[in-house]
Amino acid sequence: MLELWELGGEGNCRYSTFCWRTRLALHHKGLPFAIHPVAVSDKAAIGFSGQTKVPILRHEDRMVTDSWAIALYLEREFPDRPSLFSGAVGETLTQVFNVWTDRELIPALVPYLMRDVLDCVADADAAHLRAQIESGFKRSLEELVGERPKALPAFRRKLQPVRKALDQKQFLGGSQPTYADYVLFGVLQWARVVSRVEVLEAGDAVSAWFERVLDLYDGVGRKELSRTERLRETAA
Amino acid sequence: MLELWELGGEGNCRYSTFCWRTRLALHHKGLPFAIHPVAVSDKAAIGFSGQTKVPILRHEDRMVTDSWAIALYLEREFPDRPSLFSGAVGETLTQVFNVWTDRELIPALVPYLMRDVLDCVADADAAHLRAQIESGFKRSLEELVGERPKALPAFRRKLQPVRKALDQKQFLGGSQPTYADYVLFGVLQWARVVSRVEVLEAGDAVSAWFERVLDLYDGVGRKELSRTERLRETAA
Repeated sequence: MLELWELGGEGNCRYSTFCWRTRLALHHKGLPFAIHPVAVSDKAAIGFSGQTKVPILRHEDRMVTDSWAIALYLEREFPDRPSLFSGAVGETLTQVFNVWTDRELIPALVPYLMRDVLDCVADADAAHLRAQIESGFKRSLEELVGERPKALPAFRRKLQPVRKALDQKQFLGGSQPTYADYVLFGVLQWARVVSRVEVLEAGDAVSAWFERVLDLYDGVGRKELSRTERLRETAA
Repeated sequence: MLELWELGGEGNCRYSTFCWRTRLALHHKGLPFAIHPVAVSDKAAIGFSGQTKVPILRHEDRMVTDSWAIALYLEREFPDRPSLFSGAVGETLTQVFNVWTDRELIPALVPYLMRDVLDCVADADAAHLRAQIESGFKRSLEELVGERPKALPAFRRKLQPVRKALDQKQFLGGSQPTYADYVLFGVLQWARVVSRVEVLEAGDAVSAWFERVLDLYDGVGRKELSRTERLRETAA
């Protein structure tokens, strides 16, 4: 029995970039799992884990935290299921890609869309997130929104290495998705769920790839409503 | 019969970052090959190839240019030899890594050490290289040297994704080297051959890895004298 604790916002939306990595990794392995949403400010809900961050995976009596550690755990524990890395070269280069995404891609995008997140979570969570980001970036969320017109083109430029590969390939795994696809997907899915901002330009090979990943595993990514779709539902 | 045309400088030194990628790929495949050094300003020497850049690989009656195209060619043409990518996931992630190296790592290091290259090549080549870099960066080589104290720490920070992997693994291929190792090696070998500047700090996991790659294939990387070693020989 596998259980996943992941961030949940208002209207039960799932916006955590790290939890999406784990969610798709579990689907990739074809493993059934139960999901428990946790509000970002609700440390008590995950107090059992001995730490304060999601995703958390419970497998029988074992607890694994950190999306990269979970990916390694799933790969070792379920070797007969489809591989997340396809061997040692894939695993090491995926680790490089994972750290690059965390250090380069996320800071290039997340702060500039963070103001939008406050409208997707309960008030206590909004206060918590604002304090966290503003102390990290030493600017108000509103100042960060002001920098958005410059930030988006810079973010798109950073995607050039993956764009070059996706000009030729269906996925970062070649003709089939691999864990690196889920790492990148998590960034863009976060943006899709929290903000109406168009992060990618029309015609971008990365955009076409994102649509393909949204369709994977019976469309689990696409079934999660985008911010635009949620606002439309509220208005109707 | 395989023949490789690569950049050669004074004292027959081999300093091209791209040519080192190809050289180690040929060793990885265990293929015998002949090497022809070409001076950077001597287009006539490679006129036969119909273009102006090295590396160039000739295999029987076929000519392949561009280090990435050569890697793909070797992988397809010699499938029974040790793989450069270990499958589709490795190939696509290596392509991402290759483009990232060209777009992020090389511009973060090469211009700041470029002044040193002029002392490693003939006068005509030095004039050619100076014009090329100064027009690209819109600054004199001497101005770029002035920025070096800031550039080196920025370069080291960019290596953090590979450093995290190399903290745990012997090579980017895991326990064995893969083409991605040769891509990164090419950058640091370029620096070692052209400049006395210590690009990495002592104790850096990337530095320990670089020493391992210098030793591969009977020490082909290490047999190429560093700038410091060449100056010592001249002084002796």
